[in-house]
Parts: sequence; C-alpha cells; structure tokens
Amino acid sequence: MPSCEGMLGFGDRVKTVKERRALYIGRFQPYHKGHHAVIREIASEVDEIIICIGSAQHSHEIENPFTAGERYLMISKSLRAEGINNFYIVPILDVNWNAVWVSHVESLIPPVQVVYTNNPLTKRLFKERGYEVRTPMLFNRKSFSGSEVRRRMLCGENWEELVPPAVVEVIREISGVERLRELAKSDKEG
Amino acid sequence: MPSCEGMLGFGDRVKTVKERRALYIGRFQPYHKGHHAVIREIASEVDEIIICIGSAQHSHEIENPFTAGERYLMISKSLRAEGINNFYIVPILDVNWNAVWVSHVESLIPPVQVVYTNNPLTKRLFKERGYEVRTPMLFNRKSFSGSEVRRRMLCGENWEELVPPAVVEVIREISGVERLRELAKSDKEG
Amino acid sequence: MPSCEGMLGFGDRVKTVKERRALYIGRFQPYHKGHHAVIREIASEVDEIIICIGSAQHSHEIENPFTAGERYLMISKSLRAEGINNFYIVPILDVNWNAVWVSHVESLIPPVQVVYTNNPLTKRLFKERGYEVRTPMLFNRKSFSGSEVRRRMLCGENWEELVPPAVVEVIREISGVERLRELAKSDKEG
Amino acid sequence: MPSCEGMLGFGDRVKTVKERRALYIGRFQPYHKGHHAVIREIASEVDEIIICIGSAQHSHEIENPFTAGERYLMISKSLRAEGINNFYIVPILDVNWNAVWVSHVESLIPPVQVVYTNNPLTKRLFKERGYEVRTPMLFNRKSFSGSEVRRRMLCGENWEELVPPAVVEVIREISGVERLRELAKSDKEG
Amino acid sequence: MPSCEGMLGFGDRVKTVKERRALYIGRFQPYHKGHHAVIREIASEVDEIIICIGSAQHSHEIENPFTAGERYLMISKSLRAEGINNFYIVPILDVNWNAVWVSHVESLIPPVQVVYTNNPLTKRLFKERGYEVRTPMLFNRKSFSGSEVRRRMLCGENWEELVPPAVVEVIREISGVERLRELAKSDKEG
Amino acid sequence: MPSCEGMLGFGDRVKTVKERRALYIGRFQPYHKGHHAVIREIASEVDEIIICIGSAQHSHEIENPFTAGERYLMISKSLRAEGINNFYIVPILDVNWNAVWVSHVESLIPPVQVVYTNNPLTKRLFKERGYEVRTPMLFNRKSFSGSEVRRRMLCGENWEELVPPAVVEVIREISGVERLRELAKSDKEG
Repeated sequence: MPSCEGMLGFGDRVKTVKERRALYIGRFQPYHKGHHAVIREIASEVDEIIICIGSAQHSHEIENPFTAGERYLMISKSLRAEGINNFYIVPILDVNWNAVWVSHVESLIPPVQVVYTNNPLTKRLFKERGYEVRTPMLFNRKSFSGSEVRRRMLCGENWEELVPPAVVEVIREISGVERLRELAKSDKEG
Repeated sequence: MPSCEGMLGFGDRVKTVKERRALYIGRFQPYHKGHHAVIREIASEVDEIIICIGSAQHSHEIENPFTAGERYLMISKSLRAEGINNFYIVPILDVNWNAVWVSHVESLIPPVQVVYTNNPLTKRLFKERGYEVRTPMLFNRKSFSGSEVRRRMLCGENWEELVPPAVVEVIREISGVERLRELAKSDKEG
Repeated sequence: MPSCEGMLGFGDRVKTVKERRALYIGRFQPYHKGHHAVIREIASEVDEIIICIGSAQHSHEIENPFTAGERYLMISKSLRAEGINNFYIVPILDVNWNAVWVSHVESLIPPVQVVYTNNPLTKRLFKERGYEVRTPMLFNRKSFSGSEVRRRMLCGENWEELVPPAVVEVIREISGVERLRELAKSDKEG
Repeated sequence: MPSCEGMLGFGDRVKTVKERRALYIGRFQPYHKGHHAVIREIASEVDEIIICIGSAQHSHEIENPFTAGERYLMISKSLRAEGINNFYIVPILDVNWNAVWVSHVESLIPPVQVVYTNNPLTKRLFKERGYEVRTPMLFNRKSFSGSEVRRRMLCGENWEELVPPAVVEVIREISGVERLRELAKSDKEG
Repeated sequence: MPSCEGMLGFGDRVKTVKERRALYIGRFQPYHKGHHAVIREIASEVDEIIICIGSAQHSHEIENPFTAGERYLMISKSLRAEGINNFYIVPILDVNWNAVWVSHVESLIPPVQVVYTNNPLTKRLFKERGYEVRTPMLFNRKSFSGSEVRRRMLCGENWEELVPPAVVEVIREISGVERLRELAKSDKEG
Repeated sequence: MPSCEGMLGFGDRVKTVKERRALYIGRFQPYHKGHHAVIREIASEVDEIIICIGSAQHSHEIENPFTAGERYLMISKSLRAEGINNFYIVPILDVNWNAVWVSHVESLIPPVQVVYTNNPLTKRLFKERGYEVRTPMLFNRKSFSGSEVRRRMLCGENWEELVPPAVVEVIREISGVERLRELAKSDKEG
C-alpha cells in the first residue's frame, strides 16, 4: 500500500486521507483498448480509481453515439472481466463553463490526489486548482482511438479488435453499429 | 374515420386512443412549399396533425432567422388559407440531450401514433422509443428547402415562389429579409 | 370583423396587424368550467385567442398533476366540442426569471394586442412591457378552481361537475385520479 | 443465478439481458442503517445493484448537508466494509421536470429490471414507464431516517448509532456536524 | 495604503496581488442604510470593494421586488453621492448548486482577499474554500433590514427613512411601491 | 452636461431619466487598444458608460482564454490608469436565446439611452427593441483585434504593443500566455 504521507495537503476538502485515489476522465465513445491499458495500469497503483464519463448527456451523435449508461456498462464489464474491482464510475454532465468545471467534478466524486488525462483543457483546469496532473503514455494512439473505432464501424471494417470483448458484446446488444450508421445519413434541414 | 384497431398498443401513455394523430417535426426556417405539401397530405389522412417547431429558442441567426412565434404564424396562416383546421402547433425548445428528447416532446404534446420526419436523428430517437416513423417523400428537394429560401433572400433572388403566399406576407410584416441581411454582415469579434 | 385602428401601435414587433389576437395564460391543472367560460367569451370577441399553458414542465405533483400534453388535450377537445376553432395552444416553460419572461412568451407566440389573466404577477409583467391587460370576471370562483377540482379528486367527491365533459374523458384515459392519489401518499425522505 | 426469462421484455432498450440488475434511488443525507439494511438485502438477491444518489447538486443545506461526492464515499465505504462489491453508485442531478426524469436516469445507468423506492413520486414515474417497482420494508422508520440523524447532529445527541461506522468516519473527516450547525444559524436577509 | 504582505498566499489564482480587495455579498431588496453603513466602512479600509448583487435573476416577487439593474442603480447612486468611487458592482445569478457557487463567483470578479457577509451559507462556503470571512456588525438590525423596508412599503408606513436618499429617488422613478403592492394581491391559481 | 430632453421617452422602463448612459458590449478576449480608444471616447460624451462583458462564462478556450473576472480587471485597471471613473462593468452570461437576450441585459444593468456595438447581431437585437444603436469607428481593425492579440501570444510575437499597459500586467500575473499555449496543444479525444 502506498504511503499516505505524500498525500497530506493535496486536497483542501478532506483533512485526513486514508486511501490513495486517482481520477481518470474520458469520453469513452466507445471504451477501447487504449483506455483499458491505461486504466488497468492506474488501478494497480492506487487504492481506488474514479473513472469519470465526460459529456455524459451526449449520445446519438456521430462523435458521441453512446449514452452514459451504455458507456458505464462497457467500462464496468471490461474491468470486472479481468478481476478489477477497485474502481468507481461517475457520469459527468458538461456544464459549458470551464471556470466552474473542476468544482462541479469535485462535488460529485470522492476526493482524489492525482488526475490522469490526455486532454489539454482538463489538464490545465485541474493544474490551476492545484492538483497533480499526469499524462498517461498512449501506445499506438492512431489505432486505439475513439474516432478510429467509429470510422471502422461506419466503413464495415474490423473495429472489434480495437476494443475489449465486453465492449463488443454491449455494442451488439444495443445495435450500436446500426445506430451509428443511421445517424450518419445526413440531412441538414431537420 | 380510420379504424383505431391498428393503433392500439402504439403509445404506452394512453390506454384507449380515440383519434389517430400524427407528429411532424421541422425547424421551418422558413415554412416553404415542401413542408406545405407534406403537411397537407398528412392532414388529409389523420384526425389531427401535431406540428412541432423544433429549435424554438433559435432566431436571429443566419441559419435560423425567425422566432418560434413568427414560424407559428407562417404555418397557421398557410394552412388556414386552405381550409385546413385539424392541426396543432407546438414550439419545442432544444434540450441538447438526445436521450431525453423524446420524453421532452411527449410531455408537451397529445399522444401520437406515427411520426413523420426527414431528419435521421429524430427518426432514430423515436424508433428506439418504439414509435412508427415514416419518411415523407420530398419533391424537388433542391429548391424547396429552407437553405435555398434563405440563400435567395440574401442574394435578392425570387424566394417568394418557394413559399406559400401567407409566408410572404408574414416575412414582409416583420422585415424578415432586412433582418437576415443585417445578420449576414459578419463581424466575428463581438 | 373588428376595426384594426385601435390596434395600431400596440405591439412594437409587427407593423401592420391584420388580426386581433388575445392572449390567455393559465396553468390548467386541470382545465375547468371557469377557464372554459372565460375562453369561450374571449374567443367570440377576437379573431384568434392564444392559450398559453404555463408551468409546462410541471407534472406529477400534487399541485400540478398533469403534463402539458395532457392539458393540451383537455383544452382542445373541450373547445372543439363546442365548435370553437379560432384558438392556438402554446406550452410555456417556466424560466424562473421574471424580468425576461414576457420576452420568452413573445418569442413563442404570434403577436397579441391584449392579455387576459387573473394572476397579479403576469398582469404586472405585461403591463410594464406596455401591454393592455384585462382581468376576466370569474363566476363562482370558489368552486371553479383547480385546487377545488384536485381536492375533490383526492376526497372521492364529485369533481366531474366542475370540468367540461371532454376533460372527464381525458382524465379517465390517463388514470389521472389514481395518479393524483398515489402522489399524495407523502414520504418526505426520498 | 436467477433465470433471465422473466426479464425479457422489461426494458425496451436492450434486447438480451444477461444480468439481473436492480435500481435503488435515495438522497442519502446521510446514508444510515435503514438504507444499509435494504441495500444489503437487495444486493444479495440480484447480480448488480445500481444506487442512484438523487438531488446530487444539493449540499450545504439544512436538509441536504452533504455533497454527492461525500455521500458516494459514505455508501461505498459502508458496503465494502462488509465485503459487498456488486454495486454501482451514480449521482443524479435534479432536472425539475418529472415527465423527463425517468429518461434522464435511464440515460445515465445500465439497464435495470426492477426499481426499489419508498418515494411515491419515483414509484409513480417508473410505473408509468412500465417498470416493476417494489417498496422495501423499512424497519424502525422513525429512528432510521435522514431527518432524525440530522436532528440529533444539531442537538448534540447520539447520531452515530444510526449510521454505519464508515459514515461516522467520513462525516468526522469533513467536519460534517460543524457544517450543519453553522448552516442552521439562520439569517434570512442574505 | 495597507501593506500587501499579509495578503500574499490568500488567493491561489493570482500570484502577486497589488491591491487589497474585499467582497461584500447581499441581495439588496432594496439597498438600505444598514448595507450602506457597512459598505462605507469597508470601502474606507480596502483599496477596492466588490459588491455582488446576489439572486440577480429574481425580481417582481414579494421578497425580491427589484431587478439587478435597479439594485445596481440604488447602490451606485448612494455611494457616488458620498464621493465613494472605489467599488465595483457585479450581478451574480443563483446557480442552485452550493458546491460550485464559490467558483462561479470567483470566475466573475477580480481576486479578493477577504469576504464580508452576514449569511451563514455564504460564510460557510467561502470558509471551506480557504477564504478569510468576516461578519460585519449590524446596528439596529430590526429596522435596517430589507424585509422591514418592504413591509413598510406595503403598509404605507415611512420606509424612506430606512434607505439612502438616492434609493428613494430610484424607487419612485420605477414606481417600485406600486409594483410591490400589485404583486401582493395574491391569486394562487395562475 | 448634455441636455436630457432628447432622452425622454427612449427607455420604457424609467420615466424620468437623470443621467445619459451608454452601453458598450464586447467579449474583450483580451481588452485591447481598439476597445480602449472607443470606450474613452464614449466615456467623455456621456454621464456613465456601462461596459458589458459578453460570453462571461467562457474562459480557458483558444478563442476565449480569460475569465470574466480577469477581463473585469483588465478593463477597470486600464480606465482608472487614465483617470476615467464614470464606468460600470457588468458580466453577461450567454443565454443562447436571441429573442430574450435584450431583456436579459436590461434586467442586469441601469437603463441606457444608446448602445454602441460592432456586432451585427447585437445591433439588430437592440434595434428591434427600439434602441438607438451606433457603430463606433474602429481604427486599424486588423491589428487591434482580439484574434490578432491571441495569434501573437501563440506565436511569440509582440502582443504587448496592442493592449494597454495594465492589461500586460494582468495577463502576466495570471500566466495568461502560458495558459493559452497549453490550451492550444490539441488532443481531440478527451
């Protein structure tokens, strides 16, 4: 178990911190092997990992096809399939107000000591609030990305190899590929 | 009067449905002869047609120049001018949350059995909620479209031929063409 | 047809007003014979009456049991049953910002020349914006009120005599009395 | 493992349901032994229990002293302390729009087959959407209630006996009793 | 000029603080001599005082009769009439989310080192964010309060003696007493 | 002092207008010498100038790097440095509803008689509400623009010469250039 000493003083909301908790924020449209590798790694290093599903109210869009509930299922099934249990998943709605966004997240999650993110805005906002922010290494970023998975779904290519098996299952159950393709039939004049 | 039998079971909100009602959703920026032909057709087939004015809070934008109230007037005057009275018009605000949007619409309108729309997102969302969705045939889509009407207004071309006479009248009363042209004078740094 | 002369200058949004339109605003929880008498009277005096359903997003509350769509149905069926067709029904969401509320209503409805209301706040807000506001006479206010109808529903008394027959029909279809009674079983700690 | 057969047809969002999931909704201000007993019971009967923290944006009020993040911690620590791991916790913001509230919840959580709640509004809203709703038995409701816990905190009485040990710990860390007492010093003119 | 040394380290948003700034938050319904005495005192002690008008979107209510713009005018005229110029007035909308409220205020105002307030909630929220919070002495709280001023307005008593002369002037210009009295004519069924 | 006679009748909210007030609306990302020249000019002609900071909730974006509070500081310091004191600064949140936007602004500021803006939408919206709207002359628009200042910040060019000295100081204190550069490191998959 990691020593708690270095932690004291990180958060100003809780005086005595018993567990070491990390925050990982993503949109997970969908959850893919790139996310999975990073989260497994973090989960093995901390007591608990809080996984925030960003843009939770977005779904049924080309860039955001899946609901927060569907993404919840993808993440939890994939992690439990590997025996990982020390995670929490919290959907976070966009507030479109960057200056209050960190407070918004803080009010919905247990206190954390370190934030993992690859998004420059998230990084900057948490840094300005005094958090330690780390940028996880991404292997093969070009393939393991949400946009590549969605592109393959639209083009009928092999997207299944980019995501954990549990994600394939969830997307099949909800007819996710069919949904994405219907949304792609553009008709601007609604 | 159409038989109600096929209707039973469609909506889960009302047990006994007395009238056959259809829903048509559009933005109507502005209402043009393409909309008009479709709505006249539907109105002749059902007991009542509910016309939802989407993106009701948008106005004074290049793509959305008219308020919901102005669009209300265009539609009702055009239909009444032809003796059509079995319609309701309901302004619908955007909620920017696709997964709750159908519930939002349902809470504001009488129950309907069939939804007409050409918008793929609207189509998908109502289908996932179990509605019968139909795609109306559009004749001469290139001319009879809101964007073509707005383009002609900006370029000083003949836009009047694309809309019902009552719409010409409403747009003249509110100085709609002048409004559109002023909005088009771009100045990004507000 | 009423003379238009008195109308000129009322609204600053439309230069030439062709029809005389009145606005009536209520919550209609539910629509009762008091509302019905007033609206029939106004409808006979103007070209068109705009009926705004206030607090449209409220439903399933003791004070506000019915959705806007259900109230829509009560009003339209009751008026059509008497051959009245010159009305529009517009659901209006609360904005909880009194100073912008009149603009909000104006953006969703065709222009009106006179506003009928018994609510002092509505009266004041429209007066401050320069509208002519009238207070309709209410006969037998004690019986013909939404709270009395709801009270009778809860107590198993004769509420049906207070509302038009079409309203009885709508409330039966949606099991409205049962809904109200379930909501009344109070349990504060959710 | 419970048979899945009875489940088919419950939710219209997912065709094949693999796990039996229950939903429990509460405000948890704070999480007490009454909640705890019910949730342990449900957790032992289903594959997964989804615990929704209602009114997630409320905190620092006499009736709602704790943030969603703090309530998250109370629930998860209490359950993990007993070796219970098959739960998910999802904060749910109030939308103040009852007719869309079920859709809102559905969009944020995995699909569930049964809803447990003691709140009549929640019960009614899920029932109208076709869910099976159950009312958990509450033992000693008078003592094991959030309002009784808060009353004891304000009066300096023994509130600790009403909540699981992990909740005592969390409330001490965040100086929760001190917060509640400061908020109670009323001064209406802000 | 006060020494800046004590200030360093207060705010985490600006590294070098040149001016000593205080924040005073109130609703000012209306601005009265109690507010005025406190603000004059603070203004004489700091370089700049930021006066936040809370609940800015509330107006035309019995408890909140005046718009933020009207309150703005009352405050600025009263202070300028005494030659006080080192103040800023910032309207603050309610966000109904206590946990993000301090961030909300921080994003709209220059950085401050000390917060003056008599409201226990405001006090607690700023304290939890690490601010120094002071409670100004209120003389003759019973008379110099917004509710007493509004009560006297409604009862036709002498309210003018409780507010600075500039406030009397503003309220007369906007027919404020007439507005309050009209709003007080209660009619619950809107 | 300018005669008040021409003013009477401009605003419908206040009957007797004592001061001549002008409104200037901008985003000020950041405040530059172009804004400064115009505002100094207006401030010398009217009794009071109300400066509205538009899009107040936007910050930490490439196009909108600074918070409303930071922009507040830039404007007030720059004007006070030149001995200008007859101004008010009011942050205005976007409402994304053009038809109610003027009411929104009106509810937050003292009444004004003339509006200065270079933004065509703002111009049109205030004109439709009956305001006198003027377009200030902009000298050297190409250099003195927010986008040019931000471009120079990103490219390491001389941005300081485009803004008043007080703005340089504020941006240095908040590490504004560093913030902008971090935000520019694009990573679309958050």
